Amino acid sequence: MNRYEALANTMAAEIRSGSLAVGARMPSLRQVIAQHGVSQSTVFRAYYLLEEWGLIRAQERSGFYVAPGAALAGKAPAARAAEPAKVDISNLVFSVLDAAKQPGIVPLGSAFPSPLLFPLPRLAKSLGQAARFMNPWSTVADLPPGNETLRQQIALRYLRMGVAQPLEQIVVTNGALEALNLSLTAVTRPGDVVAVEAPGFYAALQAIERLDLRAVEIPVHPRDGLDLVALERALQDYPVRACWFMTNFQNPTGVTLSIERKKALVALLAQHEVPLIEDDVYGELHFDADYPLPAAAFDTQGLVMHCSSFSKTLAPGYRIGWVAAGRFADRVQRLKLMSTLSSSIPVQAGIADYLQHGGYDKHLRKLRSALRTQRDQMDAAIRRWLPAGVRWVCPQGGYFVWLELPEAIDAMALHRLAIERGISVAPGPLFSAAHAFENCVRLNFGHPWSTKIDDALRGLGELLGEATVARR
Amino acid sequence: MNRYEALANTMAAEIRSGSLAVGARMPSLRQVIAQHGVSQSTVFRAYYLLEEWGLIRAQERSGFYVAPGAALAGKAPAARAAEPAKVDISNLVFSVLDAAKQPGIVPLGSAFPSPLLFPLPRLAKSLGQAARFMNPWSTVADLPPGNETLRQQIALRYLRMGVAQPLEQIVVTNGALEALNLSLTAVTRPGDVVAVEAPGFYAALQAIERLDLRAVEIPVHPRDGLDLVALERALQDYPVRACWFMTNFQNPTGVTLSIERKKALVALLAQHEVPLIEDDVYGELHFDADYPLPAAAFDTQGLVMHCSSFSKTLAPGYRIGWVAAGRFADRVQRLKLMSTLSSSIPVQAGIADYLQHGGYDKHLRKLRSALRTQRDQMDAAIRRWLPAGVRWVCPQGGYFVWLELPEAIDAMALHRLAIERGISVAPGPLFSAAHAFENCVRLNFGHPWSTKIDDALRGLGELLGEATVARR
Repeated sequence: MNRYEALANTMAAEIRSGSLAVGARMPSLRQVIAQHGVSQSTVFRAYYLLEEWGLIRAQERSGFYVAPGAALAGKAPAARAAEPAKVDISNLVFSVLDAAKQPGIVPLGSAFPSPLLFPLPRLAKSLGQAARFMNPWSTVADLPPGNETLRQQIALRYLRMGVAQPLEQIVVTNGALEALNLSLTAVTRPGDVVAVEAPGFYAALQAIERLDLRAVEIPVHPRDGLDLVALERALQDYPVRACWFMTNFQNPTGVTLSIERKKALVALLAQHEVPLIEDDVYGELHFDADYPLPAAAFDTQGLVMHCSSFSKTLAPGYRIGWVAAGRFADRVQRLKLMSTLSSSIPVQAGIADYLQHGGYDKHLRKLRSALRTQRDQMDAAIRRWLPAGVRWVCPQGGYFVWLELPEAIDAMALHRLAIERGISVAPGPLFSAAHAFENCVRLNFGHPWSTKIDDALRGLGELLGEATVARR
Repeated sequence: MNRYEALANTMAAEIRSGSLAVGARMPSLRQVIAQHGVSQSTVFRAYYLLEEWGLIRAQERSGFYVAPGAALAGKAPAARAAEPAKVDISNLVFSVLDAAKQPGIVPLGSAFPSPLLFPLPRLAKSLGQAARFMNPWSTVADLPPGNETLRQQIALRYLRMGVAQPLEQIVVTNGALEALNLSLTAVTRPGDVVAVEAPGFYAALQAIERLDLRAVEIPVHPRDGLDLVALERALQDYPVRACWFMTNFQNPTGVTLSIERKKALVALLAQHEVPLIEDDVYGELHFDADYPLPAAAFDTQGLVMHCSSFSKTLAPGYRIGWVAAGRFADRVQRLKLMSTLSSSIPVQAGIADYLQHGGYDKHLRKLRSALRTQRDQMDAAIRRWLPAGVRWVCPQGGYFVWLELPEAIDAMALHRLAIERGISVAPGPLFSAAHAFENCVRLNFGHPWSTKIDDALRGLGELLGEATVARR
């Protein structure tokens, strides 16, 4: 264990024992240096680790404070390892997802937008035609990397963004989820360390758990996005083999990394020769005029694997995604051949037909406009129904809003009580390996606004006023 | 290292050095016991290991002989580990598959039957209709375990075989390949030992390689199938965590395990509490009257994961398969949710529609009859064009025939020379971790017979007469 990890563990024990109370200001740099005989950099690193574990919080220009819930987390320090940690998230994720499955529930916790927002009848026409006119030999010819017309259409959309993606590096997958998983498998071996976001998409944590990898969590700030300083430190401290980040309308925070930060991210990873698995499934759902360029646009080394799909923008359930995998394209293609062989061949052809003839851009404009309206309705409902002290950043794309509730609130308790009222929310602890963000929830505004949804927000507001959702 | 492994390594070194020449009879039990001071059982186990490594061959009632090519394999003994071995097969498999991709090649090495044998227009109708009438909410409701009508239709087909598969244990997958991979992932951790067939389907070896498992290869006899005695020994000697076997019309040998052997297999695995991943993608392609019952039919412990698909029987390229996963169904379903989320939802509905209204059984009768005719044509062409000394067992289902060529033949050389003549074959070394079966090839008779195919067989016969295909 490094010196700073030892220091962090000592302080974690003090916090958990209550010696350092919730809300208390952490000792100053000077005090810690004097008390423990360590360097300033050691204290900094220890504090960043404690922050990463969710035990303390930075407040600008004011220092670090013990985070709410830190003392009550009920976990031995060992459970929040100083080293990049093995992950145990799936049971929590599935229990929350299962609870939210009951019929008629208001799906504020859902990961999906309403299927009614998509041109399913027009898609069915493309699919039916593509199947009817399918060349039987395409069942062999369209094996990975996949249907050529579809890959051309995808490459054309990259070109319109100003990004040249070589056709042969685009591999069609079963949705973005397979693209992400294949990419991760392509560049890691069991035991490797992978940098992920905190809070971040739980599928990354599930993949890390399944592939026996270890996660190092990099903080995401709701306004600026990924903390590049923390990332640089992690790259120096650990043998990070890959990063899995969402740079546009991040799930769950909704935040987009600025162009400057994306460039800095790409440069930093190039310097360390670490591949980036870039999850960009929400990029097309921008409320401003343009698609925010992904980090892949600035990659000159072939180190970025840009993963996306049509599942959130056009064709939910069709299961067509892709990865533009740079220098790893061959490996990804082989892994795909070995694990699922191919994406459905008539469906690939059907999506290709729709992209050519279905009016995708017109549909996208309509979809973005609908989501923006729903965003406004959600924003208004939060202001109207939720108590003061709830904080959120109004998202500029996608269909999630991340709420930081008053510190006394227990999001898991809120989730359970909300389910009883027929409302699902996605509680913060789903979104980090440390099950932090205990007073946060993610809400979905991907469904056309209705009285039922408005009532659900009012219901959440009522619950937030009750003692039952407070921490023990 | 156990005593018998040490003995096997000693003898392997003797064989590779040439002290024991190719074709030489191995020392008798008595001689080895006298020379090495070991027990009879140690000698037996050592000889079985050497056989597994492809270094020696048993000849009935006559003892063991040094296998052709053993001395020339050019591998240090360490490379063929006594312990269950890590696998390195993918490069070989992909280089052979890539070579066979050139347009116009006669696809005797293909893994797929001709797409012209399937009712693609009728399927397109079902798919188009299912997509047109798809309930938008099915994009959520049909997530794993999958479309309920489809799973009911699959369960009904099991019932007609006399097998009751609980609906909730059937998980829809992206073809059988995903079913097999998810099943293997569900019951293993990196480093675990998995029993596979030799020769066997290379996807099992690829999965073992990808998941960082170790393979112990169980011999398959072209007439009787899996060697249950060798399996029992492996279960005793190694911590086998799972078996991956194909019990009907096995790829590549075409052999079917008898009912008695299947029962014995299930009993043996139940005794050791080892799960069986049963790959049964060819069972429906029987030339006799009935579907040969799979091992799953005799499983009372929920230990058999029965994997199949519609890819070889109805809908190539649609990528719809399933696993009836017994006690592992929940884990498989979760793994599916985490890795590819779902199989294409309109396609699930399309296949369900076809199974209800499309005339699947009529199509199957036609398909079986076509394959049987092609089997006869292939059998006749082998007799006509290939030289004496070629041995094969006439398959009773599926579309593969496994040829054992004269011992002097090098199947890899034959493969390379055949490609130059526009003919692909699947050389034996693809089908084992040890790259054994160096004088074997798998031929595909899944394509309607033609002069071109007949000419290809004649071409192979000519090549077999040339010195260039002999071992160095």
